[in-house]
Amino acid sequence: MIAFITGVAGFIGSNLADKLLKNGISVIGYDNLSTGQETFISKALAHPNFKFIKGDLLNSQKLNSSIIGCDIVFHLSANADIKNGLLHPFRDLEQNTIATYNVLEAMRYNNIQKIIFSSTGSVYGETKMIPTPENAPFPIQTSLYATSKLSGEGLIQAYCEGYGFQSWIFRFVSILGERYSHGHVFDFYKKLLKDPSLLPVLGNGKQRKSYLYVGDCIDAILMAIEKSNEKVNIYNLGAADYCAVSDSIGWITEYLGIKPELQFTGTERGWIGDNPFIFLDTQKIRSLGWESKLTIKEGVIKTLQYLEQNHWLLNRN
Amino acid sequence: MIAFITGVAGFIGSNLADKLLKNGISVIGYDNLSTGQETFISKALAHPNFKFIKGDLLNSQKLNSSIIGCDIVFHLSANADIKNGLLHPFRDLEQNTIATYNVLEAMRYNNIQKIIFSSTGSVYGETKMIPTPENAPFPIQTSLYATSKLSGEGLIQAYCEGYGFQSWIFRFVSILGERYSHGHVFDFYKKLLKDPSLLPVLGNGKQRKSYLYVGDCIDAILMAIEKSNEKVNIYNLGAADYCAVSDSIGWITEYLGIKPELQFTGTERGWIGDNPFIFLDTQKIRSLGWESKLTIKEGVIKTLQYLEQNHWLLNRN
Repeated sequence: MIAFITGVAGFIGSNLADKLLKNGISVIGYDNLSTGQETFISKALAHPNFKFIKGDLLNSQKLNSSIIGCDIVFHLSANADIKNGLLHPFRDLEQNTIATYNVLEAMRYNNIQKIIFSSTGSVYGETKMIPTPENAPFPIQTSLYATSKLSGEGLIQAYCEGYGFQSWIFRFVSILGERYSHGHVFDFYKKLLKDPSLLPVLGNGKQRKSYLYVGDCIDAILMAIEKSNEKVNIYNLGAADYCAVSDSIGWITEYLGIKPELQFTGTERGWIGDNPFIFLDTQKIRSLGWESKLTIKEGVIKTLQYLEQNHWLLNRN
Repeated sequence: MIAFITGVAGFIGSNLADKLLKNGISVIGYDNLSTGQETFISKALAHPNFKFIKGDLLNSQKLNSSIIGCDIVFHLSANADIKNGLLHPFRDLEQNTIATYNVLEAMRYNNIQKIIFSSTGSVYGETKMIPTPENAPFPIQTSLYATSKLSGEGLIQAYCEGYGFQSWIFRFVSILGERYSHGHVFDFYKKLLKDPSLLPVLGNGKQRKSYLYVGDCIDAILMAIEKSNEKVNIYNLGAADYCAVSDSIGWITEYLGIKPELQFTGTERGWIGDNPFIFLDTQKIRSLGWESKLTIKEGVIKTLQYLEQNHWLLNRN
């Protein structure tokens, strides 16, 4: 079997590539390296069953020819700069929605029909149903990022109905772990390295969020593909619990052995479109036998350890 | 007040323009006349408070300058050829999703923040909750058309959250009445004119659908704008009941005084992505005091009367 991974040099894509290669699956990885890091795939690049293609999903011609011969597509590439979506509103539409369309068309052109898609728990907007199940009430979107992911889900579902595709759509919480390169642990660690006495925090520290370790995330994806066979398979992926931003700050500063002054921006939301409480109901994926091996705290610590060993990541761009 | 109407030369857009002008509101109408008909706006064109601009929503520059000075936008333009979506999958994405983005950007650029959007009951996919309320369970999309409308809804909602817009989103059933120019009454009437002895019917005739008369539709829209003031206001619009395709065939043939042989294609769905049962819960809009004046049957007859007087519509293209 040959798997095609978009965003292969990204956080989740590169971890997935390593895992698939380890499982004996050949991988063609596609990435424009705009945010992906070649270092992340250095191990994969040394593997005989891995092929890397530097390309952009907006380059349909290159995409169409790169995907030839693949059996299954893991479409993980995305603009994931959620916070700054409002500064450049076309970016999510182009890099997430239109790019997903391009992936689907490349698949259709080459008669490839199985797609795995990384969506987000943010598609539930500010739902009142918490923990939020996959069939929560029809949501109202609160960010361009989530909207673009919802559009991607819809396109994939329509291709399943119309062209005989089969899909596994995963609505993630934030993912932690090795090769993590954006998000609150990243931001906090970077700030604390610069000034261990002061930590500016977006929001009031009371936002409650759930996180998942990247290894657990990938295990869940592979188990869902193996064990579910509907036309459209949708799964929430997240930890069994959640934490407050202030909890996470406590773990981080404890691990680093420092006691910075916390400087809150003081609002309920870290940024416009930020959701003060994200906690997904993960009964559906758990019913397949999956469970997360790491707690949120362990995931945070693993991430810190990784960042400590990879300071180059903090200083890029 | 100046209203901007996209798709002003279309079925609903032209009826809306006439109504707004009658209510003393100035209208700037925008249409590329690809499916819109100049004849539909002949009355509006004679009105001193109406200005027509022939332009495409994909022409951002023209759109941005045309919309200047407007207070509210009725975004009705769309590719509405639902049945043939699978023949040209980019069309819905481009003409509905990307065009909606262009409208939102033109508004943002010109500091216009109120938008009315014509979405569709098809965004509920094949929901099991019938009649279907606005907060039905998170749907799975079954057509590229509905997906593109869902994406439009999401973009509008994200603009409300991020840029202070206010929106009224209407999920329509199929609309009937004067200037109706595609849909089952149109298709049946055209076929029966050609051969009154035989009527080919997509599906098994048992699909159940709801319809709404265009005058009732426009009354509902204007009442919702007047009486609701949330950041995002979402309303289903439909009749209080539904009918089977075979009921509608009965009304049409009775009205025409003919008894054609019915030739069913024999499946539960008229086409891929067709929903065998659409019936929206319209409690929310009714709670504002709105109700439909015409029954579905009366709407079908009105439509037939209109088509009888406008045979030119049957032969266009």
